[in-house]
Amino acid sequence: MTDARHFLPLPSPFALHRGGYLSGARVAFECWGRLSPGRDNAVLVFTGLSPSAHAASSEQDPSPGWWEAMIGPGKAIDTERWFVLCVNSLGSCFGSTGPASPDPATGRPYRLGFPPLSLEDVAEAGFQVLRSLGIERLAALVGPSMGGMSALALLALHPGVARSAILISTATAARPFAIALRSLQRQAVLADPAFADGGYRSEDLPLPGMLYARKLGMLTYRSPEEWRQRFGRRRAASALSGDARMVGEFEVEAYLENRAAAFSNHFDPCCYLYLSRASDWFELAEHGAGDPVRPLARARLERALVLGTSTDILYPLEQQRELAENLRAAGCEVVFHALPSLQGHDAFLIDHERFAPPIAEFLNGLWRSIDR
Amino acid sequence: MTDARHFLPLPSPFALHRGGYLSGARVAFECWGRLSPGRDNAVLVFTGLSPSAHAASSEQDPSPGWWEAMIGPGKAIDTERWFVLCVNSLGSCFGSTGPASPDPATGRPYRLGFPPLSLEDVAEAGFQVLRSLGIERLAALVGPSMGGMSALALLALHPGVARSAILISTATAARPFAIALRSLQRQAVLADPAFADGGYRSEDLPLPGMLYARKLGMLTYRSPEEWRQRFGRRRAASALSGDARMVGEFEVEAYLENRAAAFSNHFDPCCYLYLSRASDWFELAEHGAGDPVRPLARARLERALVLGTSTDILYPLEQQRELAENLRAAGCEVVFHALPSLQGHDAFLIDHERFAPPIAEFLNGLWRSIDR
Repeated sequence: MTDARHFLPLPSPFALHRGGYLSGARVAFECWGRLSPGRDNAVLVFTGLSPSAHAASSEQDPSPGWWEAMIGPGKAIDTERWFVLCVNSLGSCFGSTGPASPDPATGRPYRLGFPPLSLEDVAEAGFQVLRSLGIERLAALVGPSMGGMSALALLALHPGVARSAILISTATAARPFAIALRSLQRQAVLADPAFADGGYRSEDLPLPGMLYARKLGMLTYRSPEEWRQRFGRRRAASALSGDARMVGEFEVEAYLENRAAAFSNHFDPCCYLYLSRASDWFELAEHGAGDPVRPLARARLERALVLGTSTDILYPLEQQRELAENLRAAGCEVVFHALPSLQGHDAFLIDHERFAPPIAEFLNGLWRSIDR
Repeated sequence: MTDARHFLPLPSPFALHRGGYLSGARVAFECWGRLSPGRDNAVLVFTGLSPSAHAASSEQDPSPGWWEAMIGPGKAIDTERWFVLCVNSLGSCFGSTGPASPDPATGRPYRLGFPPLSLEDVAEAGFQVLRSLGIERLAALVGPSMGGMSALALLALHPGVARSAILISTATAARPFAIALRSLQRQAVLADPAFADGGYRSEDLPLPGMLYARKLGMLTYRSPEEWRQRFGRRRAASALSGDARMVGEFEVEAYLENRAAAFSNHFDPCCYLYLSRASDWFELAEHGAGDPVRPLARARLERALVLGTSTDILYPLEQQRELAENLRAAGCEVVFHALPSLQGHDAFLIDHERFAPPIAEFLNGLWRSIDR
């Protein structure tokens, strides 16, 4: 099997932001392009909750990445110019240490014994990758969704770590609607009898709970208007007679079922719980005595691009506007675009026509500004 | 115990809209005010999914009703003028026959053996109440939420049944977002082991599933902005240390838990499933060969009031605007208000300051138009 991942051992013990530590932990990442001799062309991408570090294809791993349309030679994040890194979040299950990894103290998976994980830890693991490569200052730090929060955490923890940032469909902190929704998602996993308080066996995973949680998540990853146009009130091809059962008659239900299956079959339930909770916990203002502008001012970003969509339910557009204002108040030059994508929170994964041009333009400007 | 309910036996057998029939069924209703000698002052209220017929207090039952602020002497729906009826939906569990009622064929509760229930059946049961009282034409037909769909069903089934209609936070058909959400709610009940395919015992109800379904529903009954203002990111007073568990740390989570408990402790799970599915099924256009205007034109409504709120996620404002346009196209004089209530879909139950005045004004106009 081809694999483009690199693995960096983290300092051991690796102290976590909310207490506790990990021994012998590592972080997985992939990279594209070449680091310039001056090490001034690095772009670090943090991911949303579910993707791996495989953001784009490469010679080592030619399978399409989760942001294939965005990263590559001649693309918006142009790997002929930039040395692009993507890190699998600490706590995830695609090569980085997380609740599914063996606890060296017992030899068995951590599961719920994993220490409380926060996005500051995800950020710090990413920082270790930069340090290992001798990158002192990123040209750009990129984060969509949860990745945007991890990026903000990195900026707060390591002032000066980046010249610029591209923050997409994200926020300085989740609001109660997003918190309530994620709480219900986690509850669905916890309530699955197969979850067994984290004691599930690999041959008896809590798949129904994971499937349910993902379906619920998809209510806020896409948009009601997209579904109205795509599905309307059409019945599912596979539906039994509508009168025969209580769920599954409409096409939108079949769509959710199919889309969610892909996720729940390959994501570890405990990793999901930890990363979901970390998303609720994150609050940039905690790094500034209640004021989100302070850590941003300390971060000394020169410029930032903030993107959001009017159809995002999870992190509504108002939150990206707020983030842009916070960045401006912190002295950063900000470009903010409210994109009219139909696909809601996940539009950055789908609507490349709208998302690629502002990212390309921003990075072109950045490229020109780098003195060589 | 005081009880203001009347019970009307339905014709037996009572044929249902999608097939099947009920034997010995009945419908519960309450009423306020006095029917005029000309029987021209009747107002019929259909309810949302969860309430009983007890919309307002009375001498017989002085406990506050679910629309206490709206119905009563001198109130917006003024019981000194109008003879007001409120029907417990067929299929519910507050006196009308539903899946929790004994099946006369077996003597045991119908549960999932109840025939497929649609809102046309809810409407028809309401119609029987009117017939039993000799009411040929309602002065006004009132329906919020699911009750609005039941009202539309009644108009489609019995053209001429009402001079006017007040339709609140409702739609001519659910869109896929609402369908997906309700499907997940029903799935939560079905997946509760205690549900036991409808074989739950009264001492072992599927409460966790019902509680979960209600919490999920509340995500769309209120609004993200209301929660942002009410709860922000405050921690729950009762929360364990946040690191100790995966859910329940934030105040919004505690709020959902507490609010949902009231519902799940008194609503029968099967009644919930049937009424929820009926809400997905309803489509006014089915009564007009695909065109929702046709049944409305046949209905010969003279005037209508359509109310909605900009914060409604379940039946977004656009759907009330569409309904108002359909009514206009059908030749009806329509007053439409987009109210800026914070409380979303449920605002009609809470934001009386905004909802009462347009209802009062509409009914005042109607009162003046009645020739005496």
